[in-house]
Amino acid sequence: MKYLKECWYMVGWADDFAPETLVPFTLLGEAVVIFRKSDGSFGALEDRCCHRLAPLSCGRLEGDDVRCMYHGLKFNAQGACIEIPGQERISAKVRVRSYPALERHSAIWLWMGEGEADEQLIPDFVGVNHPDWAMVPGRMDYQAHYRLINDNLLDLSHLTYVHNASDSFAAEDQWALSKMQVQPISRGVRVGRWIEAARLPGTLGQSDEITDRWTTYDFLVPGIFLLYVYVFEAGTAARCNHQEPPANLTPLRQNFTCQAVTPLTEKTSSYFFAIGPNVEHADKKHLFFQMANTAFAEDRQIIEAQQKCIDRSPDVAIMPLAMDQAVTRFNRMFDEMIAAETGRLNLREVEADAVHQ
Amino acid sequence: MKYLKECWYMVGWADDFAPETLVPFTLLGEAVVIFRKSDGSFGALEDRCCHRLAPLSCGRLEGDDVRCMYHGLKFNAQGACIEIPGQERISAKVRVRSYPALERHSAIWLWMGEGEADEQLIPDFVGVNHPDWAMVPGRMDYQAHYRLINDNLLDLSHLTYVHNASDSFAAEDQWALSKMQVQPISRGVRVGRWIEAARLPGTLGQSDEITDRWTTYDFLVPGIFLLYVYVFEAGTAARCNHQEPPANLTPLRQNFTCQAVTPLTEKTSSYFFAIGPNVEHADKKHLFFQMANTAFAEDRQIIEAQQKCIDRSPDVAIMPLAMDQAVTRFNRMFDEMIAAETGRLNLREVEADAVHQ
Amino acid sequence: MKYLKECWYMVGWADDFAPETLVPFTLLGEAVVIFRKSDGSFGALEDRCCHRLAPLSCGRLEGDDVRCMYHGLKFNAQGACIEIPGQERISAKVRVRSYPALERHSAIWLWMGEGEADEQLIPDFVGVNHPDWAMVPGRMDYQAHYRLINDNLLDLSHLTYVHNASDSFAAEDQWALSKMQVQPISRGVRVGRWIEAARLPGTLGQSDEITDRWTTYDFLVPGIFLLYVYVFEAGTAARCNHQEPPANLTPLRQNFTCQAVTPLTEKTSSYFFAIGPNVEHADKKHLFFQMANTAFAEDRQIIEAQQKCIDRSPDVAIMPLAMDQAVTRFNRMFDEMIAAETGRLNLREVEADAVHQ
Repeated sequence: MKYLKECWYMVGWADDFAPETLVPFTLLGEAVVIFRKSDGSFGALEDRCCHRLAPLSCGRLEGDDVRCMYHGLKFNAQGACIEIPGQERISAKVRVRSYPALERHSAIWLWMGEGEADEQLIPDFVGVNHPDWAMVPGRMDYQAHYRLINDNLLDLSHLTYVHNASDSFAAEDQWALSKMQVQPISRGVRVGRWIEAARLPGTLGQSDEITDRWTTYDFLVPGIFLLYVYVFEAGTAARCNHQEPPANLTPLRQNFTCQAVTPLTEKTSSYFFAIGPNVEHADKKHLFFQMANTAFAEDRQIIEAQQKCIDRSPDVAIMPLAMDQAVTRFNRMFDEMIAAETGRLNLREVEADAVHQ
Repeated sequence: MKYLKECWYMVGWADDFAPETLVPFTLLGEAVVIFRKSDGSFGALEDRCCHRLAPLSCGRLEGDDVRCMYHGLKFNAQGACIEIPGQERISAKVRVRSYPALERHSAIWLWMGEGEADEQLIPDFVGVNHPDWAMVPGRMDYQAHYRLINDNLLDLSHLTYVHNASDSFAAEDQWALSKMQVQPISRGVRVGRWIEAARLPGTLGQSDEITDRWTTYDFLVPGIFLLYVYVFEAGTAARCNHQEPPANLTPLRQNFTCQAVTPLTEKTSSYFFAIGPNVEHADKKHLFFQMANTAFAEDRQIIEAQQKCIDRSPDVAIMPLAMDQAVTRFNRMFDEMIAAETGRLNLREVEADAVHQ
Repeated sequence: MKYLKECWYMVGWADDFAPETLVPFTLLGEAVVIFRKSDGSFGALEDRCCHRLAPLSCGRLEGDDVRCMYHGLKFNAQGACIEIPGQERISAKVRVRSYPALERHSAIWLWMGEGEADEQLIPDFVGVNHPDWAMVPGRMDYQAHYRLINDNLLDLSHLTYVHNASDSFAAEDQWALSKMQVQPISRGVRVGRWIEAARLPGTLGQSDEITDRWTTYDFLVPGIFLLYVYVFEAGTAARCNHQEPPANLTPLRQNFTCQAVTPLTEKTSSYFFAIGPNVEHADKKHLFFQMANTAFAEDRQIIEAQQKCIDRSPDVAIMPLAMDQAVTRFNRMFDEMIAAETGRLNLREVEADAVHQ
């Protein structure tokens, strides 16, 4: 399966990158070494010295430069070799690829495309530094293709079956049964759904309180998930005709989770997430995190099992059903973007060949 | 290597299948989920939901139906989908394959063929529920092709070398040296051999007692092994002209073992076995089991080592010797059955194509 | 990548082979079983019985013969089958390949070629039985192609970066910066280099003593490394015009290491080594060994990381630099030897075919 290359991928939370440290990361099957520069900005190089192919992540960060600790070649953050021990002249060919890398929304993003890195395309993420929410960040690694995780997040009907345990999301049947509203948005889809006359899961609400919840999430290219949950008094869903509640209606309670799915290799992925209530209830953020951590381990278990099923018979096709409308709509758009990019890249190669002739 | 598909494979002892439990099993490379129905009979389904390819064995048994616990599809024991959450109409295409499964001779058997399951072909097994024998059942899994295990069982000359230890079968040189009698039987071979003037192995006989033993086993398609050992006073073999002893000659002692080899995948297998004396000596059945368990671990060690040798040079051929007459005869018959089945299946496909045109 | 087959490979130190023991060894991808014969000489057979392909190393050494402990075939040290249980006539075809094996320089050497084993080609090794040096022998196994280890040993500029720690070789920048002298020798290269006005690493010298060191190593086909270090008073290098010191100049101290790289399979290797001072300082040999063991684990770490980099993108080429002149020169010679051997083998096959027609 192909990747979308001309886009930004999340490779970690900013706090995961300690100063003066080389962090190896595999992204879209390519080995990269990421580091914080002295001014706080980020550098990323191909994690393979061009001399004898040792990993630069086994090397040493010297200021903003990276020295290979096999035979001592030193590269600057742009990938140019600036020192070869015992050799005076250095050919311009002695270099490694560098990747655009930057911090935004409390996360670090990498651009893997050949074309110019377009900062307009950084996903409209809401990270742990957002003033409205008190969130705890986390990471899980998967032995699964990243699009299986995307598909999981695009269809929350699975909550009823995967996350019904009381120490997980204690999800109601309504996640599978109630009607969802799907609409296209820029580079993604938006899905809303009412859960009516239900108790709040776990320790998050008073156990005897019955409320209506408006849940709405955006899912954006290449694998960004932003879910808002607004709790209202029972009866609100009906009063809103089961449509999105008006903006001036203040919820009793609210919480939020941001997530990003990142392909490491064709069959391994990283899953970054943060979750918590609005800042007024920051004391509950660890409760939210613990519940989510339990739930996301449930996802990983079923998705890794699904991956093994697929590996055993790679040619068997899935069978899309009515519940999959958000999945299907997003995937169609995503596949078209990948196909268009592949077309552009091929065209670029043809043109480059023409220039060289 | 091909499998014989139109036959029954043992997938476990009946007691291994607890009520209200989904048991995953891989048979001939296909993932299957097996379960006991409420009336005690057995169901077996393809272990992969047709929706998004998650394993049904991660699901939930609801009565005689299986619910996928990813997005909630429910299938009956015939494989038809009978519920899709949030969707009213269900296409007949929403289904998984079901496999004929039944209990016989205290074991569970599965039919993997495309054609009708023929109960006449259930091997004439003698299981732990047979009134004549007091047996303890066991199972070992192998990292080896199932036919290497078949070959091992078809030629007991290996006992002399693999099982000569005193806590194993303490096997005599005669297993390798004495003449065996091989005759074809329905779907298999029968092999008889006298072990003369020998002590019984281990703690099974009085240590100073010298006896003659008539050993005879049937080996049946696809990998069924039934071995009877009859102990007589010394001199009996000679008095019988080294032929099979007459039916009216009562042995001093006797024991029996039934075994079944089942291919999981091309290089992994399950080995089911039970062993023990005649019921009059039921108190010794655990001694028999312990001895056999030690011996069968010896087999597994040499066969898995043999598999690794073969993997290193898959094109090197074996060199059949005189001792291999039972192996060679059975394998020729078995290969012909597989070839004939392959021919039938190809013909069926050609005819099916003709109908569709 | 191809191997050179018509040469001797070290498969262990002589003391590693206990009497009456079958030692399995994988060499150039072929499984071999090695054993000491009753007269102290060595035998080596293909580690796969020709009957049913079980490993002979799971068998039993009976005098100078090897019995397969699956079905009892017995082979002599020349590989001929001399016993088949229960069978009188033995075809000459029942045999396994035998390999020339011998002890020399306190090591065991195997010849894998099809042609006659030429003892003239045994590398001019200096082993632990050499009277001049007091050495401790060791072995490390690598998850890496053996030529990556050869390359490492051929270019000691890596000492500066890989072995600069004080508990390792505490190597100076001069290993990377000072000029080396490379000259071709029979089946290899010789490389000399002065390290000037430096302290001796670790506990090996007095910590405040500044000396000059002449270091010289031979690297020989297929992977033999012999390194001599001679310590002189500071200023000696300049007095020798930075050339090899005259033979009559007695060093203050000296030490030596012999090493051999042996390909097990395409991506696994064994690395045999011994190190120590001249016999007059035999009390320091364990200090040398400990330091080397730490350093060689550093090599293994970077080389195995390099192998993983290569595996990820097998088509990326290395980029030879000025520091690589010994590597490049040796590899060119070695590749030519392999190409010439391949040519000879092909010619031999053509001639053999012509004879058969």
